[in-house]
Amino acid sequence: METTPLLPSDAEVYLGNCPTRQILDRIADKWTTLLIGMLAQHERLRFSELKRMIGGISQKMLTQTLRDMERDGLVKRTMYPEIPPRVEYALTPLGKTLCGPIAALTQWAHDHIDEVNQAQNAFDKRG
Amino acid sequence: METTPLLPSDAEVYLGNCPTRQILDRIADKWTTLLIGMLAQHERLRFSELKRMIGGISQKMLTQTLRDMERDGLVKRTMYPEIPPRVEYALTPLGKTLCGPIAALTQWAHDHIDEVNQAQNAFDKRG
Repeated sequence: METTPLLPSDAEVYLGNCPTRQILDRIADKWTTLLIGMLAQHERLRFSELKRMIGGISQKMLTQTLRDMERDGLVKRTMYPEIPPRVEYALTPLGKTLCGPIAALTQWAHDHIDEVNQAQNAFDKRG
Repeated sequence: METTPLLPSDAEVYLGNCPTRQILDRIADKWTTLLIGMLAQHERLRFSELKRMIGGISQKMLTQTLRDMERDGLVKRTMYPEIPPRVEYALTPLGKTLCGPIAALTQWAHDHIDEVNQAQNAFDKRG
């Protein structure tokens, strides 16, 4: 049985204090994944639009995730000095480079839904 | 400014109750990502080996994540009736199909670490 190599030299990613690992911890997150995917399809979106589009996300979680993504350089936040102030979010060039990997993950979920559901049913029947 | 399309028809993934979204929520998770990556590099591993290799994971989180991955059909758990019992984990054929997307995500973290760190430092200076 062959093992599947993941990366030439990725041992460091498994150490909790390694910078690569800390970045992976941030991007391997369901809300980040969904926000990158949603922003990939729109030039820019307001907070209220994102809140409405991402089913199940709380106000607090959306605020925190967008702030983390802004800090990581994935998202640009622009505030327009109107009354009331308008705030819009868009992917940065760096954030756009994440679209490919995220799309592969989303596509996997889409393609393997039947197999996963079958596995879950079999597991639950075993009790 | 061009938008980057993510998938031809992925609107459903953003609805909290859609099955594709539920699977994405499971796999877009830092521990699942790290475990898939680690198991991709070894034919099989014991619980204690995984615990030692994945920095920072608690016993409880490792138990729960492996159980979820087994239920989703990504991991096969084999118990050998020895004394004391030996339990080993290996990727299933379905789990192996996730290695490509996970490797892309890990590679992204590895390739963009400097850009993310620079963004974080600039953000923190702004206060």
